Amino acid sequence: MTIADIPELRELDTRRNLIRIPDQLDVPLTRRVRHLIDTPEFRRLANISQLGLVGLVYPAANHTRFEHSLGVYRMALLYLKQLAHDERFAAAVSPADAEVFLVAALLHDLGHWPFCHPIEDIHLPGVPQHELFANSFLLEGEIADALREDWAIQPRDVVTLLSEKPRDTRSSILKSLLSGPIDIDKQDYLVRDSLHCGVPYGRNFDQQRLIGSLCLNKAGAGLAITDKGRTAAEMLVFSRYVMFSEVYWHHAVRSATAMLQRAFYLLYDALDLDQLFRLSEQRFIDALRQAAAMGPAGDLLAGLFGPTRRLYKRVAELSFFQNRELYEKIARRPYPWLAACAEELANSLSRQLGKRIAPHEVLFDAPPVKREVEFQIEVCFAKEGVYRDFAEISPVVETLARRQFDDYVKRTRVFVHPRIAAEVRELAAVEGLIREAVERTAA
Amino acid sequence: MTIADIPELRELDTRRNLIRIPDQLDVPLTRRVRHLIDTPEFRRLANISQLGLVGLVYPAANHTRFEHSLGVYRMALLYLKQLAHDERFAAAVSPADAEVFLVAALLHDLGHWPFCHPIEDIHLPGVPQHELFANSFLLEGEIADALREDWAIQPRDVVTLLSEKPRDTRSSILKSLLSGPIDIDKQDYLVRDSLHCGVPYGRNFDQQRLIGSLCLNKAGAGLAITDKGRTAAEMLVFSRYVMFSEVYWHHAVRSATAMLQRAFYLLYDALDLDQLFRLSEQRFIDALRQAAAMGPAGDLLAGLFGPTRRLYKRVAELSFFQNRELYEKIARRPYPWLAACAEELANSLSRQLGKRIAPHEVLFDAPPVKREVEFQIEVCFAKEGVYRDFAEISPVVETLARRQFDDYVKRTRVFVHPRIAAEVRELAAVEGLIREAVERTAA
Amino acid sequence: MTIADIPELRELDTRRNLIRIPDQLDVPLTRRVRHLIDTPEFRRLANISQLGLVGLVYPAANHTRFEHSLGVYRMALLYLKQLAHDERFAAAVSPADAEVFLVAALLHDLGHWPFCHPIEDIHLPGVPQHELFANSFLLEGEIADALREDWAIQPRDVVTLLSEKPRDTRSSILKSLLSGPIDIDKQDYLVRDSLHCGVPYGRNFDQQRLIGSLCLNKAGAGLAITDKGRTAAEMLVFSRYVMFSEVYWHHAVRSATAMLQRAFYLLYDALDLDQLFRLSEQRFIDALRQAAAMGPAGDLLAGLFGPTRRLYKRVAELSFFQNRELYEKIARRPYPWLAACAEELANSLSRQLGKRIAPHEVLFDAPPVKREVEFQIEVCFAKEGVYRDFAEISPVVETLARRQFDDYVKRTRVFVHPRIAAEVRELAAVEGLIREAVERTAA
Amino acid sequence: MTIADIPELRELDTRRNLIRIPDQLDVPLTRRVRHLIDTPEFRRLANISQLGLVGLVYPAANHTRFEHSLGVYRMALLYLKQLAHDERFAAAVSPADAEVFLVAALLHDLGHWPFCHPIEDIHLPGVPQHELFANSFLLEGEIADALREDWAIQPRDVVTLLSEKPRDTRSSILKSLLSGPIDIDKQDYLVRDSLHCGVPYGRNFDQQRLIGSLCLNKAGAGLAITDKGRTAAEMLVFSRYVMFSEVYWHHAVRSATAMLQRAFYLLYDALDLDQLFRLSEQRFIDALRQAAAMGPAGDLLAGLFGPTRRLYKRVAELSFFQNRELYEKIARRPYPWLAACAEELANSLSRQLGKRIAPHEVLFDAPPVKREVEFQIEVCFAKEGVYRDFAEISPVVETLARRQFDDYVKRTRVFVHPRIAAEVRELAAVEGLIREAVERTAA
Repeated sequence: MTIADIPELRELDTRRNLIRIPDQLDVPLTRRVRHLIDTPEFRRLANISQLGLVGLVYPAANHTRFEHSLGVYRMALLYLKQLAHDERFAAAVSPADAEVFLVAALLHDLGHWPFCHPIEDIHLPGVPQHELFANSFLLEGEIADALREDWAIQPRDVVTLLSEKPRDTRSSILKSLLSGPIDIDKQDYLVRDSLHCGVPYGRNFDQQRLIGSLCLNKAGAGLAITDKGRTAAEMLVFSRYVMFSEVYWHHAVRSATAMLQRAFYLLYDALDLDQLFRLSEQRFIDALRQAAAMGPAGDLLAGLFGPTRRLYKRVAELSFFQNRELYEKIARRPYPWLAACAEELANSLSRQLGKRIAPHEVLFDAPPVKREVEFQIEVCFAKEGVYRDFAEISPVVETLARRQFDDYVKRTRVFVHPRIAAEVRELAAVEGLIREAVERTAA
Repeated sequence: MTIADIPELRELDTRRNLIRIPDQLDVPLTRRVRHLIDTPEFRRLANISQLGLVGLVYPAANHTRFEHSLGVYRMALLYLKQLAHDERFAAAVSPADAEVFLVAALLHDLGHWPFCHPIEDIHLPGVPQHELFANSFLLEGEIADALREDWAIQPRDVVTLLSEKPRDTRSSILKSLLSGPIDIDKQDYLVRDSLHCGVPYGRNFDQQRLIGSLCLNKAGAGLAITDKGRTAAEMLVFSRYVMFSEVYWHHAVRSATAMLQRAFYLLYDALDLDQLFRLSEQRFIDALRQAAAMGPAGDLLAGLFGPTRRLYKRVAELSFFQNRELYEKIARRPYPWLAACAEELANSLSRQLGKRIAPHEVLFDAPPVKREVEFQIEVCFAKEGVYRDFAEISPVVETLARRQFDDYVKRTRVFVHPRIAAEVRELAAVEGLIREAVERTAA
Repeated sequence: MTIADIPELRELDTRRNLIRIPDQLDVPLTRRVRHLIDTPEFRRLANISQLGLVGLVYPAANHTRFEHSLGVYRMALLYLKQLAHDERFAAAVSPADAEVFLVAALLHDLGHWPFCHPIEDIHLPGVPQHELFANSFLLEGEIADALREDWAIQPRDVVTLLSEKPRDTRSSILKSLLSGPIDIDKQDYLVRDSLHCGVPYGRNFDQQRLIGSLCLNKAGAGLAITDKGRTAAEMLVFSRYVMFSEVYWHHAVRSATAMLQRAFYLLYDALDLDQLFRLSEQRFIDALRQAAAMGPAGDLLAGLFGPTRRLYKRVAELSFFQNRELYEKIARRPYPWLAACAEELANSLSRQLGKRIAPHEVLFDAPPVKREVEFQIEVCFAKEGVYRDFAEISPVVETLARRQFDDYVKRTRVFVHPRIAAEVRELAAVEGLIREAVERTAA
Repeated sequence: MTIADIPELRELDTRRNLIRIPDQLDVPLTRRVRHLIDTPEFRRLANISQLGLVGLVYPAANHTRFEHSLGVYRMALLYLKQLAHDERFAAAVSPADAEVFLVAALLHDLGHWPFCHPIEDIHLPGVPQHELFANSFLLEGEIADALREDWAIQPRDVVTLLSEKPRDTRSSILKSLLSGPIDIDKQDYLVRDSLHCGVPYGRNFDQQRLIGSLCLNKAGAGLAITDKGRTAAEMLVFSRYVMFSEVYWHHAVRSATAMLQRAFYLLYDALDLDQLFRLSEQRFIDALRQAAAMGPAGDLLAGLFGPTRRLYKRVAELSFFQNRELYEKIARRPYPWLAACAEELANSLSRQLGKRIAPHEVLFDAPPVKREVEFQIEVCFAKEGVYRDFAEISPVVETLARRQFDDYVKRTRVFVHPRIAAEVRELAAVEGLIREAVERTAA
């Protein structure tokens, strides 16, 4: 048996038992795949939106982690189909390994809870990584049973591939397909998020050519591309930049994000996180709002999830190229510092405007502590038999990775409650007040 | 002031204050439009899916009535922009009338409750029409206030346009834009449902050409098209047929629909419909499941909305061209008759299989009492100055309208609980049993 | 060796040696395929446009038979890949047979000469069928050599498949893939012509689903589809109808066609057809214009190919539903009759307008003698194990095939030289004059 | 009268008299526009391909300058429609000025001759700039008459706008729409070339948003964009880079280009350029081949335009990042130097291989003398009322403009006749021979 004989790969070709997802993609569902997606643990993803708060700004962006997971699984099939033709890949990865990878692709988001990324970004103690959180869903219950019975796969092997450091060539290769500069996750979400937002940004990076150029790196231990895929890979990197600029870090999306983060920050001591993170999105919201009651967090949550949408307004935006010095004082600070700083600003605004402004009515949003990963991947020049670093042969990728991404896309912004936005905007010296607040806040 | 001066039409051209919806459509939001869509009544539509149970079969089809309403509003702008160049239209419809139409387009789905169409289709006493149900949202509350203040429109005028028979030329024209063979609703939903389902069917009917061909009919009292738009209109009719065939009447969608209809039929006496129909989709489901508790309806609802998807299986399908006689005995019967007939079949299956099959474990699905509207619209042959009926010049439209639609797409099907599906399918004589059940059921 | 091992099918999967054609299709070119397309005989197709005179109306429609042939070859790969999974197909068609089919697909248009279809439509003695004309290119020269050396194929076998009646099951199957209701030719040209014309009509018939439904008919001797492909096949039939309506039988395209046909009719006695039909498009035009010199044919050709486009104008249009009786008197008449009738009309117009109108200044265009083929294909209902005729289960296909196509799309039109168009249009009684001309013309 | 009242802008809205070009664009043709495009001078563009030799590599890329000109004219309408809402634009540009611009947009390529760009790139004495060459077509003949009669425009004003330095604010603005980083030419050709090549690269830069962001620069004397269009503009710049990388500077395209350049270089002394440049593409090729006869240029031209395609093969490729030193010695050298250097290399290859290699059998291709224009445009931050240089706020644009474009995309390559390619490739020391040839060639 070879990789090409894996039933799911065969069905891709015979076009049987297909299910359709946008945009006009056929996903082959064998009986054993259907069994996995019909479990409660996987079905739960149908009630968790892929983009969370983005839907408040792009009204059609309410696609689910369920749909995305099917897309990633399909992309895994395409990667396997392509790499099966690579001798080194076929030597290192057995059909059984490939099946573990396939299952891992399908189940990679199992541990996602609602609004997972904004919550992880503030790095509070006690909040698990969603990759680790997934383990409880994988190691016991219906999914574990199905893996053992239908696939002859030990659930632990899937967990290992998804959430541990690779310990051998085989797992190092497979891990690089799941997570890396040109992984199956990005290949799906850039396109899918673009489609549902209704924007052209992440759709056009010549996916078929990129897939056609997949190979292994010089060491034979990770994904690389041939020079035929160089431009397509540059397009993917660029697409990702644009999606961050226009969607994920859209100023109104960041306002909503800042509101949710503050509410969670105010509440999390009182929450049973392990239970909370198992809920569907609506139940999750219900639980937060119940915990928040009529307090400040309740006010923030009502603006996001109440009968009327009421987002905080931007009163200042600091960018790397406009206000570099002040920008750098705020970017990548820990969340508690940002909250304290916002409170300082709320106090001085209270004085300036001559009325009480509650601490939670002022929010700072800034690039998180952790920088985005850089684009380290090798490009194989087949004719010359040479591997080069992508950034070495592509100044544009180097620029996007090192400069444009974290410093230009991710701005530092100050948002305030809409009831005071007009007044704050009229203050001549907002930037000065921000500067003072920053300086007054202990490091 | 002319129609072209309506602020929303102007913003369409200046490309200011746009919001994006798939696929890459820019919707201009003036302040007064934004005010309307930020009301709780309109915001509620963001929590009601456009296609309801279709999402159980096409996993990406969870777009909302909110998104669709924005799409219809945009289409209203395009219709107005085009028809403003038609002298008879401009003479009959004042800018103020056009604004009422615009608001009606935006708000046309305000009275939709979750799973509205399947519930309406079974024609139970006490279930209002959703168009009438909308009136309570329109005539009082924030929307009514906004209409009066921002638009100088009497809410009653919007209600009249949306839910009453037109009494003059002006309202007859505007009504035909909202509801008719080539209305703004269809123009949006065919495309939008296709996009989100991931299918090509409803996307390609040359919308720009169809819009470019809009004119008034001979009497000057309703929408028509010029012969330049004839083929595009045929394509729209054909697209709609395919969408019904492959999506709205997909056999698994019909299984889910039959399950929900039976559950609602079992429960509705005990429900406070007026309160129920004001809920968002998740709350609506919660309310139904609470009312159903552990009874038969609860079992049906668990298959649809429980942690695991568990749809009833098709054991028989009767079509016009295969089993015409039996098909015609079942099609277009009232729902209580269908339920009684299913119970008869459950009884005989119990006997055949030698085990108890509960009445709710067998479901009949059949074309509803009311046939789909035919495609009556006039086509203007400008050169000859003649208006002809669409069906007269297009045999294909006549065929789709009169024969293919209700008789070929809408099949009669029998579904059973998955626990007994295999056994029932093995019975040689299922069709005979169905025939007997039909004959035993009193008319 | 199996069909899947044919090198071209393997390259489709490994994505090597691809060439790109619209829209974003990768065509795998093995060395032996590249050898074929680099021959002078095949390269000649790069200088023959696919749609000929359509480019005078849709200015971007100047794609070539070369591009189309690559598209058909790619479609042949997809058909083979799919049908290789069908047991009966694999039993009847050996890999060697499949290679003959592949080559036949690539070379199917080799005998096309410029403006082939309009010239064939008038059925003049001495004009060969282009399928037969191809034989001279296939049986000797570089292509014949390449077939023998690179493919171990006898050129005669390709000729047999392309231009003779099938004599056994195997060739009957393969022939049905090349020519039939759902053949690889239509699958390519509908999409490709739409793309280059810039219209949406022929692009959206769910090609992937149609291909996924391919199977053999009941007798195992020809292509059929499963019921999963029924709607997609209806869409293809409908797309073809729309393309005929809006492109191939566009009134201005028909004016140009009628001009070329008349010119050719006037000239063909004096032409060396065998030599003429071997030329590229520009040389073909040059040769015609040289033969025509300053005579009537020269005038017609100058309007089509001279420095300025100058098409004849429509002065009457008779359709099946408007002027059925007169329409039926003209439709499907032999070309010499049409030319004689036009001369009669020219004479009476001369009298009416009091100035000489030359015979070639009046043109009749009418549906050709031969009706379009009907859509006879079987649909396999796999669950019930039944095959049904497509038209039986699809009224819309029956309508398109039997009624709408030849009678509604293909109109009878009269065109005149632009210098007299205004005057002729002002005559009250054009239709009467046409009627008289028809009656005066001997049968 | 305002700009919005220009008949062509009105027809854009009323959707009358449209002609279609890919992809699904409607171009409004008023009678006076139709008159212009039906002149012999404009009609000539229907026989000149947009991309010339690219069609030898991307077989569908045979779209014409005629189609492109219609696309640019439509884009001019969209620019005018948008900028008409800008107060400063409306104050500086009268409707009459706007009409001159419109005509200039339509006619901007009138002076293009076949293979214009490769021929201009080698900067031979006596070869005119195509912009100036156009003047003879504009200032006399049918176009000049039509401009005066139908448009009340002096042909000289169109010539001035198209080919002279702007002398006032008005012409400075209009010139920047025709030629600059975000001009109407690029907006059309990037998309159109992508479509016809079948590649995704130049299609997706959010054209509607870019157009929606058009404004004037700080000085009010040229095109700028608002910050809303920043990302879309980055996408356009990036798209252009990818098109150069994958299409315009594709290695096989460059081989064909080098062949044509050498042939022209060998022939041009003997050619009547003024007459030659007025021909259509086929006649142009005929004239070159006739002049070349059986000599070296004839051999080169036969490989491009003969019955069989026979491109020279790449035997060396020097890039900025691989062989920087050698690369820089060859890049941007005058063409005669390159030809001399190739001859040196031919000589040493003759010695190495022990057989005569003719000078024209070795070709050097290198970035031309003139660097591509940088992307200097201002971005208006409306909220702050500040204008910034694009490169200042976008490192990625700066990188593309300054580094990636000329140094990474445009490689230096050596091509040889296919009859010796295999032998040359086997020589160990090709790079050394190139180095010696470079050093031996006088500066």
